[in-house]
Amino acid sequence: MLGLGTVGAGVASILSTPEGRHPLVADLQLRRIAVRDLERPRPLNLAPGLLTTCPEAVVDDPAVDIVVEVIGGLEPARSLILRAIAAGKAVVTANKAVIARHGDEIAAAAAEKGVYVLIEAAVGGGIPIIEPLKQSLGGNRIQRVSGIINGTTNYILSRMAAEGAAYGEVLADAQRLGYAEADPAADVEGGDAADKIAILTRLAYGGTVPRPAIPTEGIHQLDARDVDYAARLGFVVKLLAVAQRVGSEPPKPADTTAAGLQLDVRVHPTLVPRGHPLAGVNGVNNAILVEGDPVGQVMFYGPGAGAGPTASAVVADILNIAGIRQATGGGSGTQGGGLDPLLAAGNWRQCSLVDGALTTHRNYVRLRTSDQAGVIGQIGSCFGQAGVSIQSIVQYAGEGSGAAGEASSAEIVVITHEVLEARFRHALDAIEALAEVHQVAACLRTL
Amino acid sequence: MLGLGTVGAGVASILSTPEGRHPLVADLQLRRIAVRDLERPRPLNLAPGLLTTCPEAVVDDPAVDIVVEVIGGLEPARSLILRAIAAGKAVVTANKAVIARHGDEIAAAAAEKGVYVLIEAAVGGGIPIIEPLKQSLGGNRIQRVSGIINGTTNYILSRMAAEGAAYGEVLADAQRLGYAEADPAADVEGGDAADKIAILTRLAYGGTVPRPAIPTEGIHQLDARDVDYAARLGFVVKLLAVAQRVGSEPPKPADTTAAGLQLDVRVHPTLVPRGHPLAGVNGVNNAILVEGDPVGQVMFYGPGAGAGPTASAVVADILNIAGIRQATGGGSGTQGGGLDPLLAAGNWRQCSLVDGALTTHRNYVRLRTSDQAGVIGQIGSCFGQAGVSIQSIVQYAGEGSGAAGEASSAEIVVITHEVLEARFRHALDAIEALAEVHQVAACLRTL
Repeated sequence: MLGLGTVGAGVASILSTPEGRHPLVADLQLRRIAVRDLERPRPLNLAPGLLTTCPEAVVDDPAVDIVVEVIGGLEPARSLILRAIAAGKAVVTANKAVIARHGDEIAAAAAEKGVYVLIEAAVGGGIPIIEPLKQSLGGNRIQRVSGIINGTTNYILSRMAAEGAAYGEVLADAQRLGYAEADPAADVEGGDAADKIAILTRLAYGGTVPRPAIPTEGIHQLDARDVDYAARLGFVVKLLAVAQRVGSEPPKPADTTAAGLQLDVRVHPTLVPRGHPLAGVNGVNNAILVEGDPVGQVMFYGPGAGAGPTASAVVADILNIAGIRQATGGGSGTQGGGLDPLLAAGNWRQCSLVDGALTTHRNYVRLRTSDQAGVIGQIGSCFGQAGVSIQSIVQYAGEGSGAAGEASSAEIVVITHEVLEARFRHALDAIEALAEVHQVAACLRTL
Repeated sequence: MLGLGTVGAGVASILSTPEGRHPLVADLQLRRIAVRDLERPRPLNLAPGLLTTCPEAVVDDPAVDIVVEVIGGLEPARSLILRAIAAGKAVVTANKAVIARHGDEIAAAAAEKGVYVLIEAAVGGGIPIIEPLKQSLGGNRIQRVSGIINGTTNYILSRMAAEGAAYGEVLADAQRLGYAEADPAADVEGGDAADKIAILTRLAYGGTVPRPAIPTEGIHQLDARDVDYAARLGFVVKLLAVAQRVGSEPPKPADTTAAGLQLDVRVHPTLVPRGHPLAGVNGVNNAILVEGDPVGQVMFYGPGAGAGPTASAVVADILNIAGIRQATGGGSGTQGGGLDPLLAAGNWRQCSLVDGALTTHRNYVRLRTSDQAGVIGQIGSCFGQAGVSIQSIVQYAGEGSGAAGEASSAEIVVITHEVLEARFRHALDAIEALAEVHQVAACLRTL
């Protein structure tokens, strides 16, 4: 094992107390653990000599069959994983960043050496989602994967909704309570969720999309007012990561050629209707909704982070490698036989990101306007002229109304039907040019 | 494939349209299908000669590697499954009844011949729950599995709650709409859910409990009044199937010996608090909540029945067998190598059902009483003397109050804390003996 932080300690704890778990757990032996500091006191009873400060020594140890990487970060994690693969060893990792960014390189190396690289813990903490996507839904054409896959932002959004509190306040409190990092950027700006949806995309559709190109919007600029208006209109605001097949026609063999399958993959705060299965997912919990033909909608729900849940997922991967090794009769490697193509989950299709202007979405827009007759009509006309169909348009009293020295203002909230992004942008441009419209104050996607 | 009803047709449909599904689907070939009537018109384009009326011919065909049983019922399904195993063939079945009742016999035969018998479609329709239990949660000590695993009863209960309608009315409507069978007994009396929880129990705890001994209570005697009172107290009524480890102490190696692990397994209508993850599962959907150490609570949600979802699960099993066969290099059987112990899921522990009197539960009780002062006090005393701690006791106006010729009556609803069943029964006996209590009108479990 590389690393003995919270997750690593959780894994060690499971392996050292096999009673009552699957009997295969008792067959596993933790050979060596690479740590940064040998002297650091640890809440675990570890055999002397198990620890080393040299991760290469763990990877190269001939007694080691499976390398468990729980260091996190891009380097040295990437190099160590590649080194383990080169040595013909199976790898288990919880590292979403390295898989999202170097997944193709790692998968190619693993395929060449005939070893497994398993990543159940990289998405959704303890929720079984990676293995089910690989092994239980292969008969389906996946239409959409949408998930709440960042616990920190879901905690913040749940509290904003419950308390009507502002983003900054709740973030500070979350940091005090340990639900958010001192530097929360990766969570609140959506990068962590984008890493994870990149991984889910590959498993659901059999091809990669470039991680840096995934449109990503966080919650750090979300106004409590929009959470409130959303609630009044029957929605809750969630940070969703979505990967969606473009177009609804049944796929043709052509999907697998040249340009490949076009996908709309993105991360952004989203208005979710209150009756939707994802709407009730609160706190640090995660949930991933998979929609496929013919399965329909299936959802996976549970703790998205934490030592115990994440360790449960890491151990699941180790057990799977141990289990399949029994089936193949492999001792110190699986190089002899082939790989189970479901578990190995190689790419089998070209995928690409669709041009954002060609995607369709429902939208929520909040406009700050003058409080005068006819404004709603003008806004409605702009949408109509652009071919954007509106579901609701509601006026609320503005913040500044009646304040000394400020003109009376209103807020108008519009929810559109599903419309082409290009048309919607066109309508917004026209609306922004209206003299009565002071500002397009917020613009959010809606399920 | 044995059978070509709704599920069989769904499977054939997936296999004949592999585009856009996992590439392994295209490698599968449907060799022969046993049907009852060759002449029946079918909405499928099947190669001539594929159909036969002789199921043994399918099982015995040397070109057949995997036998897919989608006939249902106990016989001839059981004999055909055993015949396939004896011939060294892998089996995929959606048949919960045969697995719940003859699972041990089938598993023993499969272990002896070294073949897989996979059953993802037997529980939860399209929801991946069997494979995740086997392959993704093995590092855990499972504390409890609780599920809404019968779509018909959940549909009926959802409508009773939404409309305040009586059981009989909704059942009749469900039958008209095709959500309930003409003979609804297996669903509404809980037998189908008991079959499924027997299967989940074996996978979660590694040992079998005798299916006929599982205490089973259906919804056919449920009064709309109790659904209504439950709602007023913040609960929804669901038919839950539960398999729970008895005692909360960490398990000892002794768990695996002699008497084995004691389990409380049961099926009954249950009051579920409105905020609970299972409370929002409505209509024909299913959901299974698994609680384990260290994973915490994970939930699997989706369509619990239907041709498409069930076919998705059957195909998943076929793919898993094809995938592992690639890994083991096995051609016409897996007899050469061993079995993956996770996927094979043999028993690894003795389990037994605990004496019901020694289990603990929260309870909901509805009493019909005289409408006079002091009754609540007397009832409270009975519970107190038996050592049963009460969470709430509320009086509602009775049905007959004020009706001509009938004494004025009241209804008293009690919700207890978690109490030993034996104490609770003792208290109920004392309460029934009170002159002011006309009847213990309802008694339900509460989460």
